[in-house]
Parts: sequence; structure tokens; C-alpha cells
Amino acid sequence: MTFGIDDLPVRDELRGKSPYGAPQLDVPVRLNTNENPYPLPEALVERITERVREAARDLNRYPDRDAVELRTRLAEYLTETSGYAVDEHNVWAANGSNEVIQQLLQAFGGPGRTAIGFEPSYSMHGLIARGTGTGWISGPRHDDFTIDVPAAERAVAEHRPDVVFITTPNNPTGNAVPAETVLALYEAAQAAKPSMVVVDEAYIEFSHGASLLSLLEGRPYLVVSRTMSKAFGAAGLRLGYLAAHPAVVDAVQLVRLPYHLSAVTQATALAALEHTGTLLKYVEQLKTERDRLVAELRAIGYEVTESDANFVQFGRFEDSHEVWRKILDRGVLVRDNGVPGWLRVTAGTPEENDAFLDAVRELKKEQEQSG
Amino acid sequence: MTFGIDDLPVRDELRGKSPYGAPQLDVPVRLNTNENPYPLPEALVERITERVREAARDLNRYPDRDAVELRTRLAEYLTETSGYAVDEHNVWAANGSNEVIQQLLQAFGGPGRTAIGFEPSYSMHGLIARGTGTGWISGPRHDDFTIDVPAAERAVAEHRPDVVFITTPNNPTGNAVPAETVLALYEAAQAAKPSMVVVDEAYIEFSHGASLLSLLEGRPYLVVSRTMSKAFGAAGLRLGYLAAHPAVVDAVQLVRLPYHLSAVTQATALAALEHTGTLLKYVEQLKTERDRLVAELRAIGYEVTESDANFVQFGRFEDSHEVWRKILDRGVLVRDNGVPGWLRVTAGTPEENDAFLDAVRELKKEQEQSG
Repeated sequence: MTFGIDDLPVRDELRGKSPYGAPQLDVPVRLNTNENPYPLPEALVERITERVREAARDLNRYPDRDAVELRTRLAEYLTETSGYAVDEHNVWAANGSNEVIQQLLQAFGGPGRTAIGFEPSYSMHGLIARGTGTGWISGPRHDDFTIDVPAAERAVAEHRPDVVFITTPNNPTGNAVPAETVLALYEAAQAAKPSMVVVDEAYIEFSHGASLLSLLEGRPYLVVSRTMSKAFGAAGLRLGYLAAHPAVVDAVQLVRLPYHLSAVTQATALAALEHTGTLLKYVEQLKTERDRLVAELRAIGYEVTESDANFVQFGRFEDSHEVWRKILDRGVLVRDNGVPGWLRVTAGTPEENDAFLDAVRELKKEQEQSG
Repeated sequence: MTFGIDDLPVRDELRGKSPYGAPQLDVPVRLNTNENPYPLPEALVERITERVREAARDLNRYPDRDAVELRTRLAEYLTETSGYAVDEHNVWAANGSNEVIQQLLQAFGGPGRTAIGFEPSYSMHGLIARGTGTGWISGPRHDDFTIDVPAAERAVAEHRPDVVFITTPNNPTGNAVPAETVLALYEAAQAAKPSMVVVDEAYIEFSHGASLLSLLEGRPYLVVSRTMSKAFGAAGLRLGYLAAHPAVVDAVQLVRLPYHLSAVTQATALAALEHTGTLLKYVEQLKTERDRLVAELRAIGYEVTESDANFVQFGRFEDSHEVWRKILDRGVLVRDNGVPGWLRVTAGTPEENDAFLDAVRELKKEQEQSG
């Protein structure tokens, strides 16, 4: 018998688990992880190499521990795009929004505390809760994947969670959460006890509506988390950030690992922030493609959840995993998030989306012929 | 009254704490954070920019989640420098050895579990334990800062910790831990219950002796952690790694955040690994300078702890913080790690070390004149 993971003294709750992550398959059309299909423009690639060259010359020194320049530029980006003014004291950055969420749970969750999310939603919220010893509560949604506000309020009142997660636009379903829902849940959370409410806006740049950033005004328990992975076309960079009351930024600094954000990460992110104009044009193209996917999928005869993200949830299927496999057989990788009856497709380039639409059009025909 | 951190529902154990980190002061000679004083050679800076340019062209995609190429190259480096063969299945990498340690504690420590370190040692072990909800036990050392093996064995037998940390060379004291001590504590830990023993070799390349990597043979509960911050002159890169039984690598993958290691970090680390020959020559220079610091400090009349690291602990002082300030007044920043009676100085360039030695020589004279 080989010595394996079960022979190690791993924590009980990890036994039998598998690492999180979509299958990384070598397929012509990959529309499974909500990546931006547009490579960075060459001018930005050159700017990144310039900035990194400069950083590399000082690489023997620790990076700016507080990433002040980066946080200042992120604050400017938020202010310019939302119209709500924040500065570097309101902003914190880490290695992907996953690390932002981990730090929030280390500060405000953890052993003996709980967090709630309204599922299906971004599954890492629950996984990071587990990883930080935070109890996880799965809150309710309606069948159309909107949050069932009265039921959610009751869940908050009953469980009195320490952290409330609201993902808007929601992943994997795509629908945006109205400001009134966030406000109702914020009120419910504060009525139960002072709890942190984390609005995960990873996909907000793709929304038909506006960011909820201005809700921060007068709400010190509210946190808005963001990422450069999607709108900035920089999934490989791993740069997540949050905006909140300065006291929240102070709090995460108590749990962050010192020098968590490398000098090359800071340099690359700063370069990308110099090119937001170009990058947001790609976002406009992707929104158009996303709307086209919604319209065409409906025309083909699929059910589609309203989408404010760079992906679309479509269904319904008796056996969604079987459909996932059949689409894969046609060279297109989409995502089975385990939402019964539904699959998720990322908006790619027009050509990738055509390939996907051809595949599901064929499938629909097959199904009708056999049905 | 302004709303502050104490008004937030932060975890009780964080209340009143300050973020970890040395003061970042603007001083001519900074010998306080054990950085390598030699900037990367220009050829390596260029190689980094080439590798990062390539990575930036694909930055819209998530990075290799498992960092296989990087782990392969790190395994080759370990094999070549230690003579003990490991491969990518034995190696895991993360954002600094701090994140490696955090992942180990998330997998093997956490709520209801404990870890022990022999203090004074690298204070982040205890801080990351706290951050992961792991109970922390402070184990004993002799007055000369070597580990008191019988007392340490008794502490392990009594507390039955889940994780045992052994730092060699030890930080902040500088002394290496003999293999026999590690073996004795490994035996004690396994006698108590199957516990993980983490040998933190962050400074091992500066040691007069060899790495303890070969102790991994037949010891699946042993982990050796390493960093590129010191010997590779890449503190700004934040690249830590570990070597262990493949089952340990499987276990940390259950708690790692997906895509934790950015494409630019992987690219930069891979470039640095192509230049190990040059970088290890700087290590030899630093070892010579370290030995000179030890000899000269003794000649001046200070007590010095044996050092196998790129820093030297010297004393003794009635009021070490006062001496720290007086050295700072002379333009040299050293580290007060809170070890009563002692200070720590990093081996810098010959010129930096001369500036430091001049400063402490002056202080000694002053002290003798007033004494």
C-alpha cells in the first residue's frame, strides 16, 4: 500500500475532498472559466514589461507592504467608473478576490463564527469559509435564481451570521442583485448583530446596471469586492481588491500575510490600470456578445437566465452533465457548476460564440429528432 | 468619535493587535529585514522581462493552477544543490513561505489543533497559527539559543502538537539546528501522535552545513520549507516552496486558493531559476561578509550568536531598543526582534557592513567612556 493523503493527519473536514477547480482540458474553444477572450493589447504588454523591468531591478528588496500606489490607482479607477469617491484608505488589494475574501473571513469569520451565501452562487465563498474554520450557511433563492428576500431576511435573523455574501452579478447564474435587496439584507444583518456584508462585484463591469459602490456611504459594515481577472482581461495576474470603510482596511491588515503582494504583481497591475480605456472597450464588445448569446440561445429554444455578467446560464436539461459532454464532443468546453438542469457558457470572441451556438443548435435538432 | 476598527465585529483575538512588519524607514543603510543587498544581475532582469512579456500575452487566461513547470525547476534546484533527488510531486510553491506555512496550518492545524515552535524563532509561525485558528505553544531553548532537546521532547510529549516548527538556521538568532535534533523531535512528535514536522530552511543556502532535505527519505510527516527571497535575492517576488512526500503536496492542494500563483510570479521565478549559478555566487560573498561581521563584532567586544544565516545576532545590551535607536541615529537600520538584550543585523554589501561596524564601534567607545 502506498502512503497517501489519508495516512496524513489532515483535518477531518478535508478528508475525501478534491481540490477546487474546473477541468483544464485542451479543447479548441474554452468557454468554461469566465476568462476574457481578448489578449491584452500589445501596447499594454510592452508597458507591463517596462514596469516589471523596473521592479525587477529592485527585486532583492521586499515590495511595498501596503501597496499604496496600487491602492491609490484602484481607488481612482473606482471613483471614475462609479462616480462615488473613494481613496486609498478605502481600498485593499490581494492575490485574487479569493485572497480578499479569505482575509475578510480571517478577520470577521473563523472558528465559532458563521457566514451565509445565497446559493447557487460563487462556490469559493463556502470553500474559503471552510478553509478558515467559518461555519457555512446556505441561504435560499427563488427558482428563477433571484434572491428570495423575505426568506433571506428570515435566514439572517435566525442564524445571525457574522458575514453575509451577496454576489452581483451572481455567478454562475448571471443575474444582478438590485440595490434594494442588498439594503434589505444589510438592514437584516445589522438588526441581528453587527455583521459584515460583502458584495462580490467580480463581474460588475459587464452589468447593464451600475456598481453598488455608493451604498458604502454611511455603511461601515459593507464591503464591495472586485477583481482585475475579468474586465481587465487579467485572470493570470491574480489581483483582487475591495472598497470599504477605512476601518475594514485596517482590520484585514491584521490578518494579511506581510508582503503578500509581490512587486511584479503590483507593477503589472499598475500597468494595466494605465490602460483602462482600451480594456473597457473590450468589455463593451463582450456585453454585446453576451446579449447576442442570450438572444440566440432563446431563439434556439433554450431557457436562459437574465445575464449581467460575461457568461450566460442556459438550460434546462434533464441531465446537464450529459449535455456538457456532448458540447465538449463538439470541441467546446462550457461549465457544469452542479446547478441541476443548467450549464454556464462564457462570452468569448464572436467566432468562439458562433462555434458554441452551432454546437448547441445541432444538439437541439438531435434532441427534437429523437424526442 | 470616528468609527474605527474597534467598532467592527473583528475576532476577539485580533482586538488591540498591530499588523506584523518591521518599520519601513528611509535610512541610508537598511540592514533590518534580511534582504539580499545585491540587485539581480542585468542579464537576469532582461530574462525576467522576456518571460513576463510572454506571460503577459496570455494574461487574460488563468495561470497554470498547479504551477507544474515551476515546481519541476524548483525540484531540480533542490536536487542539484542537496544531492537528494526530489521531483515536482514532492514540491509545492506559493506566494512566499508565509503562504506555504499558512497552507500547511490550514491542512494540518486549525481550530482545535496546536502547533509548537521553539522561541525565539521566526515570529510568523505563531502569527500564522493565530490567523488559522491553530493554538500556539512556545517551546524552550537554551540561553545560547540552541534547542533544549530534552525539554523540547518533553514539551512535544506533553502538548502533543499537530505541527512542530523547527527553523534552521534559526531566525532571528542565526544558529543552525543539527540533524540529530530534528530527528529527535521528529521521533518525539510521531511517538505522541502522527504530527507534521516543518523544517523552515529559509536561510539554508547561507549555512556552513548542508540542507536537511535528505531527512525526507522515509519520513512522510516531514516538510522542508524554502524561499527565493534570500539566496535568490528576490524578496520582492514572494516565492516560497516546500519539499515533502507527495501526499503532503496533495493535502495542501485541498486548502490552497485556486490559481493562487500568478502567471507573472511563475514567469519571474522561472527566469530566476535559470540564473542560480550567478545568484549562488552572491551567496558566497554574503557568507564571507557574514563571517566578517561575526569576527569584527567579537573583536569590538560584543557577544555574537553563531550564525549560519545572512544575518548576525549581537549583544548583549541592557536596553536593546535604546541601542537600536542609537545605531539608527548613525544612519544604519538594524532589527530589534524583541529578544531581550540582543539585536540582529543583516549582512549587506561590504560598504554597508563597514558603515554598521563603524557605528557600533563608536557606540562601544562611548559606552566605555561613560561606563
